[in-house]
Parts: sequence; C-alpha cells; structure tokens
Amino acid sequence: MTTMPALASARVLPAPFCAAMTALLDSRFTLSLPVREHHGKDESPFGIIAPDAVAFIHSTEEAAAVMRLCSEHRVPVIPFGAGTSIEGHFLAPHGGISLDLSGMNAVVAVNPEDLTVTVQAGVLRKQLNEEIKHTGLFFPIDPGADASIGGMCATRASGTNAVRYQTMRENVLALTVVTPAGKIIHTGTRARKSSAGYDLTRVYIGSEGTLGIITEITLRVYPQPEALSAAVCAFPTMADAVRTVIETIQMGVPVARVEFVDALSIRAINRHDQLELAEMPTLFFEFHGSDSGVKEQAETVQQIAGDNGGQQFAWATQPEDRKKLWNARHNAYFAVLQLKPGCVAVVTDVCVPISRLAECVTATDVDLQASALPCPIVGHVGDGNFHVIILVDPDKPEERAEAERINARIVERALAMEGTCTGEHGIGLHKMEFLRTEQGEDALDVMRAIKQALDPQNLLNPGKIFALK
Amino acid sequence: MTTMPALASARVLPAPFCAAMTALLDSRFTLSLPVREHHGKDESPFGIIAPDAVAFIHSTEEAAAVMRLCSEHRVPVIPFGAGTSIEGHFLAPHGGISLDLSGMNAVVAVNPEDLTVTVQAGVLRKQLNEEIKHTGLFFPIDPGADASIGGMCATRASGTNAVRYQTMRENVLALTVVTPAGKIIHTGTRARKSSAGYDLTRVYIGSEGTLGIITEITLRVYPQPEALSAAVCAFPTMADAVRTVIETIQMGVPVARVEFVDALSIRAINRHDQLELAEMPTLFFEFHGSDSGVKEQAETVQQIAGDNGGQQFAWATQPEDRKKLWNARHNAYFAVLQLKPGCVAVVTDVCVPISRLAECVTATDVDLQASALPCPIVGHVGDGNFHVIILVDPDKPEERAEAERINARIVERALAMEGTCTGEHGIGLHKMEFLRTEQGEDALDVMRAIKQALDPQNLLNPGKIFALK
Repeated sequence: MTTMPALASARVLPAPFCAAMTALLDSRFTLSLPVREHHGKDESPFGIIAPDAVAFIHSTEEAAAVMRLCSEHRVPVIPFGAGTSIEGHFLAPHGGISLDLSGMNAVVAVNPEDLTVTVQAGVLRKQLNEEIKHTGLFFPIDPGADASIGGMCATRASGTNAVRYQTMRENVLALTVVTPAGKIIHTGTRARKSSAGYDLTRVYIGSEGTLGIITEITLRVYPQPEALSAAVCAFPTMADAVRTVIETIQMGVPVARVEFVDALSIRAINRHDQLELAEMPTLFFEFHGSDSGVKEQAETVQQIAGDNGGQQFAWATQPEDRKKLWNARHNAYFAVLQLKPGCVAVVTDVCVPISRLAECVTATDVDLQASALPCPIVGHVGDGNFHVIILVDPDKPEERAEAERINARIVERALAMEGTCTGEHGIGLHKMEFLRTEQGEDALDVMRAIKQALDPQNLLNPGKIFALK
Repeated sequence: MTTMPALASARVLPAPFCAAMTALLDSRFTLSLPVREHHGKDESPFGIIAPDAVAFIHSTEEAAAVMRLCSEHRVPVIPFGAGTSIEGHFLAPHGGISLDLSGMNAVVAVNPEDLTVTVQAGVLRKQLNEEIKHTGLFFPIDPGADASIGGMCATRASGTNAVRYQTMRENVLALTVVTPAGKIIHTGTRARKSSAGYDLTRVYIGSEGTLGIITEITLRVYPQPEALSAAVCAFPTMADAVRTVIETIQMGVPVARVEFVDALSIRAINRHDQLELAEMPTLFFEFHGSDSGVKEQAETVQQIAGDNGGQQFAWATQPEDRKKLWNARHNAYFAVLQLKPGCVAVVTDVCVPISRLAECVTATDVDLQASALPCPIVGHVGDGNFHVIILVDPDKPEERAEAERINARIVERALAMEGTCTGEHGIGLHKMEFLRTEQGEDALDVMRAIKQALDPQNLLNPGKIFALK
C-alpha cells in the first residue's frame, strides 16, 4: 500500500485498437466508466485504479485475438476473474484493458474415473462443486471467497482444506495458456504425473497474470469422503490452540481442515451469524475418511486438544450444522469488518514452519495488543499460515501507516523463522518489497529474466510482483 | 537413441581454464580417461559419450566458483549425481565438464517438528532414510535406483510410493541453485506453502541440469506409519490386475504402493531372487496407516481384487518379509536383464489417465507379443505409469531399431489417450522428439525462451530436452 505509485488511470487507447476490439467483441468491449471502475477495485485497501477499457471474452480463441491486438498496439492486458483479490492484483496502474474471463464459465469435461475435471478459467469454485456433486467428486481447494479457478491458479491459492489436499500448486494437471504473442499453448496432460520437460504448468501458476492468460485448467478432484464430521473446540490461550495443531500434524493425523479463530473474531462471528460460541481462542476441525477412520482421527485429536486445555468438542455431524459452522468461519472476514463500521482491512498472510507457529502467533499477539487498531486473527494453522485482519479507517492515513508497520513487523518475524511473506494471497502490488527481502535480489533477477523472456513487451499485468530493472 | 548425433567427445579444454580449475580443486579436477568414461555412461542404451574433464565439488561455493570459470571460458557444465539416469541425461555430446556432486553428501538439517529435512544434492535416498530413521520420519519417494536427491529433483522423479506420496514436484519446499552466472540463489522457504512470486523451485525441478546447478534441497518428510503391511496377488490377465488398481484408486483407498509386474518379469524375479511367485500378472501392494486403517484398506482392496479374479493375497507383515518382497520388485530391472545375457534395455515410461490404463497396457501387450524381442512390463500403475523393458543386443542395430519402433508406438498411443511420454524418467537425449509431439512447437518455444533467458551462453547440460533454434 505504501509503495503504491499515484498514477493517473485515464489514458486514451489508440482509435484503431478500439475499432478492432469493437469489430471483434462488439458491445463486449467497453469504455464505460462504471464497468472500468468495477474492474479497478478489489478487496484490498487500494482505491480505484481503473483500466482504460474492459473486454469480456467467451473463448480461448478470443483471448488470443485480443492479445494479438494488444501486442500490435502495445496495450497492457490484465486478466480478471471474480475480482476477489486482496493484494491489488488486477488494478491498472499502467492502464490498458481488463480482460474479463467471467463469461468463460463452462465445465468442459468431467472424468470421474480419472478424478479430473477440465474447466474454463472463469468457473467459480462453488459452481464447480455444484456441477460435479452428482458424480460423487469434489474439488477441495477453498480460499473462502468464491474465487474463479483461473484466479486461484494465478495466485497459487489454497485455503482451509490445504492441510490435507494441498494447494493449487499440487492440484493442477494442465493448463491452456495464451502467450503475449497470442499463441495458444497447452501445458501438461491429464496424466497424473510427468517428467516431460520444464514444468510450464507451475511457471504460470502463481504468476499473477504477468506471463500468460490462463484460459482453461485441468484439475485433480477427489471422491467425496464416505464420512465427514466437524467440530469446534475452545482453548484458554492461543498458544494452547496452536500447540494442539502442531501435535496433530506431527502425529500425521490426516485432518482435512483445522482453522484457528481468535477470541475477537469469535465475538464478531457470534454477532454476524447469531451463534453462541465461547469467546475464546478456538479451533474449527473437519475430518474426512471412512466411518471408522473419521472416528479414529477425531478421537486422537480430541485427546491432543484435551491435553492442551481444550474445553469440550462441540460436534456438527449433520450436513446443515457443518454448513452453518463453516459458513461462520468463511464469514469471519465480513464479520470482523463490522467490528469497525466503514473500515477497510489490511490482511497479513505469513506462513511459517509449523514448529515456529506458536511462537510467531504469540509474539504477533503481543504486537497487536500494543496497537490501537482492532486486529483479529484467523488462520489455516495446519499449514503454518495465519492472517491478521487489521481494520483501518480509509480516511486516516495514520491508521494505514500503522497497519503497514504491523504488517511489516509480522513479515520480518516470519522471514526470520524461515517462513514466507505470503502463504496464499500472492504479491500483487502490496508485497513487492517483502518479496525482495524474502527471495533476495539474485532470485528476483531470475524471475525478471523469465518475465522478460516470455513477455518482452511487458504487456501482461505490468508493474506487479516485482519492478523490472 | 535414433536421434543421437555421432559427436566426438574428446575436445581440448583451454589451458588457462584447466589451470584455474586445478588451482581451485587440486586433484578433484581430473582429465583421467577412466573417470571421464565413468561420467559418460549411464543406464541408457547409449554408448560412452564422455565429458572432457570431471570436477568433484564439496560445496555450493565451489559449484559457483566452477560455474564462473566455465562461464568465463565457455565450457559446458553437466551436473552429475549418482549416475542412475536411463535417458542419457548426463552424457556429453557437446563436451565440457562433468560436475560431480557425490561429495556433497551431508544431511544439513533435520527438522522433525516441521516434517522437513535439508540435504546436499549428492545425498542418496537410501542414505537419507538411514540417517533420519531414528527420528521416526522417512522420505517416501523411491524410484527404485539409489539415486541422489539432486538427480531426483533434476528429473522430477517419483517411483513406487508416488500413488500416495506424490513425486519430487510436490515434495520439495526449497532449493539452493547456482546460476550460469555463478550466483547462488535460494528458492522457496521452509514454509509448507507460499504464493511469493514465480515458483522458481518448480522451474528447476525437472529441468535436467539445463537451467542451474541444484546444490541443496529442502524436502518434506513423513511420519513412519504406525502400521505397514504388504501383499502380492496374482491375476488371470493383465486387464484384471489393472482393473483392480483402477477401482482401488477411484474408491479413494490411500494405498501407499501398488505395482504391476507381468508374468515374464515374475519369472525373471523368481530366478533372480529365488522366489516362487506364481508366474502370472501380479500386483504388489503396500498399505500405510494406523493398525485399523491398514486393516480396513487391505480388506477393501482384497475385496476388489477378488471381484477381478485375484487369486489369494500373500501377506508380508514382518519387516524382513516386506523387505524381501520389495527388494524383489526393485530388482525386477536387473532380473529381467538376465533374461537375455549381454543385452541392454530400452525402457519406455508412458503415463496415462488411469481410466485408459487397462486399454493402454492391453494394446501394448498385443504389440509386444508380435515382437521377437523379450519385453517384460512393470509399472507404477496407481499413477497410470508403466515401463516396458525392451531387451536388445547392443551389437544388433536391427534390434535397437525394433525397440525404438515399439517405444514410438507406445508413446503415440499414450499421447492419443491424453497421457505423457515420460512419467518419471525425463527427456534427456532420448525422448526429445516425443516431447515435441507431446507439447507442440509453441510450448517448446516457451521452454526455449526460459532456457535462453536463464542460460544465455547455453552452458548448462547443452543439447538436452529440446534443440535450441
């Protein structure tokens, strides 16, 4: 946020470019201000930084045609999915067009026998799970927001299920990508593993739209578990809760979800969702497996929690109860925003080796207690990943500065613990300085070399992740 | 093999380069012919294509110093681990030096609480498991050969445990890499997941030594399972065995290993290991979990096998019996070589979506029956990956041609089934044409652009994976 350049966003696109785009897309190419503004504002605390136009495409071929026109006229292209970024990923500080893929929302193929599906990039994760429900399969990656699969690839997203099912890095088999030259390439195959050349799939995953336009994705999906149960458990202190998680992971219990929610967030959730959870540091659990497997996992974890002061497991075994519980967890972000009316949130996203998690969370909490800002904590603690949601008044620069000070301090601590500045949200515009500190200038030079090789005109989402030299 | 250019390997290295290398490494830099030849011959059917010298290094800093000298004098560098490649990866058609990392064999850090270890690239996988045994952890990736961890990264290896524990792609958290300019970079962190910029870790994994020299690796390791059992089961036909595997995977049974071995390989194994297995298509299973979990998995699979004509499960629950069984499976390669004295093997490595596996293996078997060459089949069938070991007389060009004809036909079939030409062995010198067919020229151009950006002098393992334009 502090590194955000104040750039004017209203540039004039070349007339022949606009004519060619209109010929291609008709009314799906628009200069409309409200549409541009909608595509220039995300969930981050940045203000509106709108693109100069928006193009709504319906196919990979249209993406390629648009890309060729943009290349010819040197117009930047910013891929846009569901707009749920919280790090400024799709804002347009260098202008150009927003390429809206939300119309590419078809599930292209479902292969239940292979546990794979192929989707267009604009498919939303909830939609995908609705559409494949009847096959007995599900796609587990769940970042909370109803993001698009393409966007989740671009940011290497993960979320609540990652402790068991990993992240987008591990669950994508193949991609269709449009290169800046407007070529259509296919990376990977539907085979579950491959040693066929460079791992182009993972070159694009996490590249935040800066290397190519991801238009189609082949994903791994999983059999819906035979049995499933969820529970909440409150703890006297954060450290007790986190220790429970550490011991669970170290014992190799294949817990599907284990989420930490601090007392302040629980208070917000109780208000928002009309629940009556104890306002204490709390873990939300979910177990997947066979009937006996789930029972065994639950018993083991209950024992560990008890040893760490956990107070009663409240079980939710019925689907509607589980749904209520996880909706509450997912609503935590919106619930805590209501703690401070009119606020915006600066969300931290560090991830540390799990042995350092208790120390990291506890030291962070000391910092937060010393701040005047409300700073609830939630986290995908099974991965060592947690978020501090720092609530600031957007009109008070001193609050923003304070939020960034806290954020920087948390990142500094995580890096000293061999962790990362971002577990799942990506760099965008917001964490460029942190990335440099984390990776070092020489590693950043390797990233720059890849960017310059694959996008020599710097047309794809320019100005994100790192500054070019 | 057929694409192998006949290149002279004996070039004269620049005298100032040799002097500088000797000053740096003393006798660890050698022009000795036997040493060069040892570094110019792998398990592939290629003959000796020796490097011009061999450098034995002991540290990342030495790797960087060597790389800087090679860059200055434009001498190619071929990283060398344990020499277990079967696709010609470290042969030296363009001369240069072999950079032997086998002396970098220290386990640098073991972090049992985080389930991570950090090793130097020359550490062998069996050595690693010996060294961490006392911690209750193990590293599951097991390509059969006692490969180096660095080499396994370079080829994106996997093997028998991948069906449950995945491959090197998913199990590496961080790398130390020496770039062609002699810079030392660190990719990733010890955090379990990250969205911090481009996924450089996976840019280098599977790059076969063509982009950088991997010198240190941080791996995920796993708690040794509480219970473990293994079994073999014979089937009337290959299709019956493969159907058993397909159904097991589709039901989501977390089997740790499921290996297919055909009747001919069983005959070879019986001779080689003095066993008395039924000479029929056979599956080898291993189950990991809690006592009750293992029992449950085994019962489910036994039921599926029975429904597909599987004849009795022979259990190996004692550690020594299990070891004997898996040694036999791992010796299959050497056992089948003895079916044809003096032979060499051309090993195919296709991997297909599991729904196509029965069809792929059956059609392949029809091809093999029509050939005069002995062609046993073994496979990591839980992944859809299988190997035909085509035994040829190295002095008979017509047998080599026949082997390549079979190989090409198998690859063609796998690609038509949305599979890959190589599940785990890599491209090396041997599968460059197949890679082009699989990925297409435009995707290959993206790989070329990355290669040229990261290694502009084309010094690192030149001539592998794809031809530059």
